[in-house]
Amino acid sequence: MNERHIVTSFDRDLEGIQATVIKMGGLVEVALSDAAKALKAHDVELAEKVRKGDRQVDAFDQSIKTDSARLLALRSPTAGDLRTVLTVMEISSHLERCGDYAKNIAKRTIAMAGSGDIDDSLSALGRMARFVEAMIKDSLDAYIQRDAEKAAEIIERDLEADQIYNTLFRSLLTHMMEDHRNITVGMHLHFIAKNIERVGDHATGIAEQTIYLVTGELPEDDRPKQDKTSLAFQESDE
Amino acid sequence: MNERHIVTSFDRDLEGIQATVIKMGGLVEVALSDAAKALKAHDVELAEKVRKGDRQVDAFDQSIKTDSARLLALRSPTAGDLRTVLTVMEISSHLERCGDYAKNIAKRTIAMAGSGDIDDSLSALGRMARFVEAMIKDSLDAYIQRDAEKAAEIIERDLEADQIYNTLFRSLLTHMMEDHRNITVGMHLHFIAKNIERVGDHATGIAEQTIYLVTGELPEDDRPKQDKTSLAFQESDE
Repeated sequence: MNERHIVTSFDRDLEGIQATVIKMGGLVEVALSDAAKALKAHDVELAEKVRKGDRQVDAFDQSIKTDSARLLALRSPTAGDLRTVLTVMEISSHLERCGDYAKNIAKRTIAMAGSGDIDDSLSALGRMARFVEAMIKDSLDAYIQRDAEKAAEIIERDLEADQIYNTLFRSLLTHMMEDHRNITVGMHLHFIAKNIERVGDHATGIAEQTIYLVTGELPEDDRPKQDKTSLAFQESDE
Repeated sequence: MNERHIVTSFDRDLEGIQATVIKMGGLVEVALSDAAKALKAHDVELAEKVRKGDRQVDAFDQSIKTDSARLLALRSPTAGDLRTVLTVMEISSHLERCGDYAKNIAKRTIAMAGSGDIDDSLSALGRMARFVEAMIKDSLDAYIQRDAEKAAEIIERDLEADQIYNTLFRSLLTHMMEDHRNITVGMHLHFIAKNIERVGDHATGIAEQTIYLVTGELPEDDRPKQDKTSLAFQESDE
């Protein structure tokens, strides 16, 4: 791009920040994976580790924000470069929120310790966690490769994540209706499912930033939602 | 501050952005208030207005981010001024998320249309909405006045918001346990309560930014939580 008259310095600085984003992404993936493992194995110790580990994710976010601001101040980028820096900051925010969700799953795992289980819901939650974890990983790959097509695929995959969530939600609701004793645990598990589903939304958010970066335009905000039945739980909080 | 060698231009630009943040805050307050009204009156039309109105909140967020980046690029601020711009961007993100919550409450109101009510939960939700709405308003006032003491008060008030939420949650859970037919509506209302409670968290987030701006340090991340009973729903997703 023509505006990159100070191409080397800007790019070098940006690369440093992007390396931090990738490291942060790796940390978030591990946190999600560990949170799912701790949930399934009722492993309070591992859950505690995830809960505490979120501080490091937050510290990465802070450092990315500060470094990005310094880069803006130092290099005064315009047009595409300015967009790039804004994108890095937004992606960092998305990852920070994913870290929060992993932490919340861990906190619930600790709160639920010893209070039983519903059917095979923990396995289903584990599968769902792996699904959105891969979405996060691929959304960061798409970002690094500036691959708008790959990013668009992730947005499509979020529909599937929503579907998995809806199925799980209905199953939990059925168990709660069938037996009162499932209600409290069912609520916990449902919140966990919701947290996992939200990670998928953030992977979509990261993918949207990549599309914005490559094409200069954000995709339409109102993504199609799978579930249109009234009173169905279309759990998009965005 | 000594580093403000280009004080007038920077301050003038910053004032413009801050004016937008305040406008955005006003919009979010109205959205929350309308969402609560629509919920209580089962007013689908008003809920639809809130749902659609969130686009404007998102547009404000986008414009604040872009203007802040331009300001950074143009004025190359350092130290305190750099912090100020980062703070504005963070506050905008918090408000954007509050807008999402108002929208989500509106979407649930639409989904719940015609499906009854539980006890006086809608009134309780309305009170809770007004409580956090005031927190948002005051957190922005504290920010504009650079009042760290006022900001610290808001963080205290979030404990009360959490308490209101916990009480409401237990009441909903009881109704769900007593009568199966309450389970589905109870889940909706509970998610709405959760959304309102999260607005309080974001008011706290804004307050924390003010403290950071004034003192240079963020308050401790792990805020005290009121409810420590095991299996209690300490619904902090952060």
